[in-house]
Amino acid sequence: MRNLSESTLTDAVLATLLTSHDARFKQIAESLVRHLHDFVRDVELTEDEWFKAIQFLTATGQKCDDKRQEFILLSDTLGVSMLVDAINHRFPEGATETTVFGPFYQSGAPELVNGANIATGVVGEPTLFTGRVLDHRGEPVAGATIDVWAVDGEGWYDVQLAHLDEMQVRGRFRSDAAGRFWFWTVKPVSYPIPTDGPVGPMLHAMGRHPYRPAHIHFMLSAAGFRSVTTHVFVAGDKYLDSDAVFGVKNSLITEFVTKPAGTAKDGTVMATPYVEAHYDFRLAQDHS
Amino acid sequence: MRNLSESTLTDAVLATLLTSHDARFKQIAESLVRHLHDFVRDVELTEDEWFKAIQFLTATGQKCDDKRQEFILLSDTLGVSMLVDAINHRFPEGATETTVFGPFYQSGAPELVNGANIATGVVGEPTLFTGRVLDHRGEPVAGATIDVWAVDGEGWYDVQLAHLDEMQVRGRFRSDAAGRFWFWTVKPVSYPIPTDGPVGPMLHAMGRHPYRPAHIHFMLSAAGFRSVTTHVFVAGDKYLDSDAVFGVKNSLITEFVTKPAGTAKDGTVMATPYVEAHYDFRLAQDHS
Repeated sequence: MRNLSESTLTDAVLATLLTSHDARFKQIAESLVRHLHDFVRDVELTEDEWFKAIQFLTATGQKCDDKRQEFILLSDTLGVSMLVDAINHRFPEGATETTVFGPFYQSGAPELVNGANIATGVVGEPTLFTGRVLDHRGEPVAGATIDVWAVDGEGWYDVQLAHLDEMQVRGRFRSDAAGRFWFWTVKPVSYPIPTDGPVGPMLHAMGRHPYRPAHIHFMLSAAGFRSVTTHVFVAGDKYLDSDAVFGVKNSLITEFVTKPAGTAKDGTVMATPYVEAHYDFRLAQDHS
Repeated sequence: MRNLSESTLTDAVLATLLTSHDARFKQIAESLVRHLHDFVRDVELTEDEWFKAIQFLTATGQKCDDKRQEFILLSDTLGVSMLVDAINHRFPEGATETTVFGPFYQSGAPELVNGANIATGVVGEPTLFTGRVLDHRGEPVAGATIDVWAVDGEGWYDVQLAHLDEMQVRGRFRSDAAGRFWFWTVKPVSYPIPTDGPVGPMLHAMGRHPYRPAHIHFMLSAAGFRSVTTHVFVAGDKYLDSDAVFGVKNSLITEFVTKPAGTAKDGTVMATPYVEAHYDFRLAQDHS
């Protein structure tokens, strides 16, 4: 293993993997080395470009903390996250489609009763979101866990607000015997993904905007069914056709309808106009 | 750009690059997206594996500081650095070959006169290194700058020693009218690359050892010639055939000869045995 050249280096690196004990790790590492080397050869990466790549990756890692995940953002904006999502969720026809997890999930959101408001005191249009969790035949799934997170009415997640110590616009609900769940929130708005890290200048150099169409994140799980991580998008959003992270699916879009002051579907009396939205989730059976 | 699937995602991401203004950036980004997506599809990366990759890259970035560059180490151990090196240094036959830059260079090493000792008080076998800087015809190159860095006799670079505030085993020399330069140092030893960051467990999973054969780093530059970043390796080292970063070339190996106490080539009187090594560097002309 000496005097390695452009044409012999890749095989030499692959040869060192022959002693790997983990077959799956070996498979991934081999493919990674092949594709990484092919990329470098294809573009004939210069030393300056290589060093810029080192600096970019380093800065991306250093931008991460307990509230910020810049590598997920990079994966999202390069379409890798949606590709991994597609490969891992080959659900049967009719099951709710999945989309990106995103970098803003936080574990430990409060468990709330149906009808609770996850956006008390938060700026934005009051919105009653109602949903049902159904199986592939359209029968209700009771006791499903529904994790919800979203931006406020100005496009910020709680973790992006430096002055905020508590969670907001996050909650966990459970479907009732009829598969129903409902909560009050604020209507989500489209927003730019964070551009103050390395991903921002990358998107700029690509000639791309950083916006995501308005959406609420959902993560659903129930015994006997495959878990689903997805969004519900707001119909009519101007960025539905140019999502910065490639996550939009038509089946996930629903109308957020503005209603005049009055009594909402759940019995809440609203003194101001408000918004109602509804979505039925269909879970695929877990055969694993 | 909605409802993207395993088969349509890559083209959708590539389509967003059409508005990029920088042709070279666009070329690199396109190739990166293609190869990255092909890799994910090839191995059908699971969500757990994707998340482990996110965590690995994040930890790699966070291990970096002003004295540690874990992404360079990753590039080195995956053979990427040597590939970039090979692509960028297609030197004419006879010119000194290049090898990895490595993660341990520090700018601002002291400028020293020939014969200076860069390892005063440093543990290791005292070594007189003599060299010449020549052009392609074998004629001396005067006034070349020679940057030198290496480990101590126990295999540590100065930046790895927490108790050390100053540089050691680093220096900059200039070739004299006959192209000669010389300095005292300690004989380098083989050493493991740092394994306390994410690269360590990666090598372990690959079934690889982390050792590099003993070497001294050199970076040479002179007006009218192409700069060279390379090593001189110690003949007989047990890791010459399994360098963890794939950097060994036969033309860069020289004998480090142990001499009895006496007068060294440069006139220094040595009361103990010492080591002598010599290497002639040949620079390629710069036609740019």
